[in-house]
Amino acid sequence: MIATYQKQCQARVDAALESLLQAPRDELARLYQAMRYSVVNGGKRVRPLLVYAACEALGGTPERAEGAACAVELIHAYSLVHDDLPAMDDDDLRRGQPTTHRAFDEACAILAGDGLQALAFEVLADPRRNPEEAGLRLEMSRTLARAAGPAGMVGGQAIDLEAVGRALDQGALETMHRHKTGALIEASVRLGALASGRADEASLAALADYARAIGLAFQVQDDILDVESDTATLGKRQGADIARDKPTYPALLGLDAAKAYALALRDQALAALEPFDAGAEPLRALARYIVERRH
Amino acid sequence: MIATYQKQCQARVDAALESLLQAPRDELARLYQAMRYSVVNGGKRVRPLLVYAACEALGGTPERAEGAACAVELIHAYSLVHDDLPAMDDDDLRRGQPTTHRAFDEACAILAGDGLQALAFEVLADPRRNPEEAGLRLEMSRTLARAAGPAGMVGGQAIDLEAVGRALDQGALETMHRHKTGALIEASVRLGALASGRADEASLAALADYARAIGLAFQVQDDILDVESDTATLGKRQGADIARDKPTYPALLGLDAAKAYALALRDQALAALEPFDAGAEPLRALARYIVERRH
Repeated sequence: MIATYQKQCQARVDAALESLLQAPRDELARLYQAMRYSVVNGGKRVRPLLVYAACEALGGTPERAEGAACAVELIHAYSLVHDDLPAMDDDDLRRGQPTTHRAFDEACAILAGDGLQALAFEVLADPRRNPEEAGLRLEMSRTLARAAGPAGMVGGQAIDLEAVGRALDQGALETMHRHKTGALIEASVRLGALASGRADEASLAALADYARAIGLAFQVQDDILDVESDTATLGKRQGADIARDKPTYPALLGLDAAKAYALALRDQALAALEPFDAGAEPLRALARYIVERRH
Repeated sequence: MIATYQKQCQARVDAALESLLQAPRDELARLYQAMRYSVVNGGKRVRPLLVYAACEALGGTPERAEGAACAVELIHAYSLVHDDLPAMDDDDLRRGQPTTHRAFDEACAILAGDGLQALAFEVLADPRRNPEEAGLRLEMSRTLARAAGPAGMVGGQAIDLEAVGRALDQGALETMHRHKTGALIEASVRLGALASGRADEASLAALADYARAIGLAFQVQDDILDVESDTATLGKRQGADIARDKPTYPALLGLDAAKAYALALRDQALAALEPFDAGAEPLRALARYIVERRH
């Protein structure tokens, strides 16, 4: 069921992203080409899916969620482009394809990332939406800015870089992940809820609990897959994190305890959704999928 | 007169920027230190000055302009950090001090720039402002995102990089500058006007004409100064642009014609301000200053 839903969300957001990434003049063709290359890459669109699914959990239509779905994916894509740079993780491959700085050049990759971030905030401020909802969209813009910025995702990347080669305890590891990947996942859920136009404090708090749990589950499962999968399935070198001496959950807890932890986080996520009706089924299915996936 | 006004604006925006750049937790200390280093550097704050002055031209108070003044400076600062990177202009000095990637490291400079951009959009969406003005602030957010993004400043940097070592005609040179530096200058003026809460279509159009003219004048004068000044006055290597074979106005038009062009642009800017009263005096003084400055 989640596979069908994921395909629908992917098709929807991919079409919207394509239309945002058309160069407005010839001189900008290469920059936009690099941005498109960085975004239109067959990605699973997990964060847009969370936006759509959280909007649906509160009875909102997918149309209302579309701008936010694009915005979170643009932020995610920019972060990968910059993360892969030689001065950062120095990765040559991403989903089995050359990374943006490999396919273009380093300067172009830096600028493509910078441009994608700005575009994310432009999409959220799109004036074609309902004018009386300006307050809502401003709150969405603030949510995304906080999650993407130095106290969120970018801060997590900084903590991650400083952690390479150092032993972290579980608390420090979770602080790092909550910033690096958790902040944008939490923002995706909150943006979807806000976009529905039907969010109240109670539903936002329950969805925040859900988002925190799946964000962490996602990371724990990623670490597990990095140990267990082979390069072909994963699209990157197996054991890459361990080879780089990055702290991981299996290294910290042991593989079996890491797997048990992922399942416990899934159950926490499902418990947070108890007040919701059948509209939250996609969110529930995603929580299950995260710890069952093989890549 | 402009020197006093500039000092006032600088003190005001510097205090506001300082308060934005405090690390919210210990793990983020180094990232915030790099962001502060990139922002708090004795810069003249030309763009914030434009925000305050445009707001004042329409009768708005400086308090109303403060968030936008911070936001444009954060965008400007991030663009300099990324511009100085080895893969871009590869500069070791900025205002006589080591560039951010020299004072910290390259990864930290990439992240500091990324974080500063997000912070700019967070400031514009600050919820402590008047809720009934959400529509206005959303339009401000859109203005900044468009100006900073791939069809604005980032696009200009991409055009600039591709132009190194190539002969450009005046039209192509102006296209580059209108994107690279003009877009953010125009946005600064528009943001100030919007922040006043008193902008109408006619005043926005007149101020846009003003901004286009001074943006270009600023660039022409920069090119002139790059030829004429010595390294001590300018804080960077003299003739750096020419040494790097970047297209400049003196190279294209000759030095005397470039100077005449700068003066003509100043006069265009002043003509655009004719409908305004004494509140526009700072904008007028700035137009004069731009072509008279020696650094």
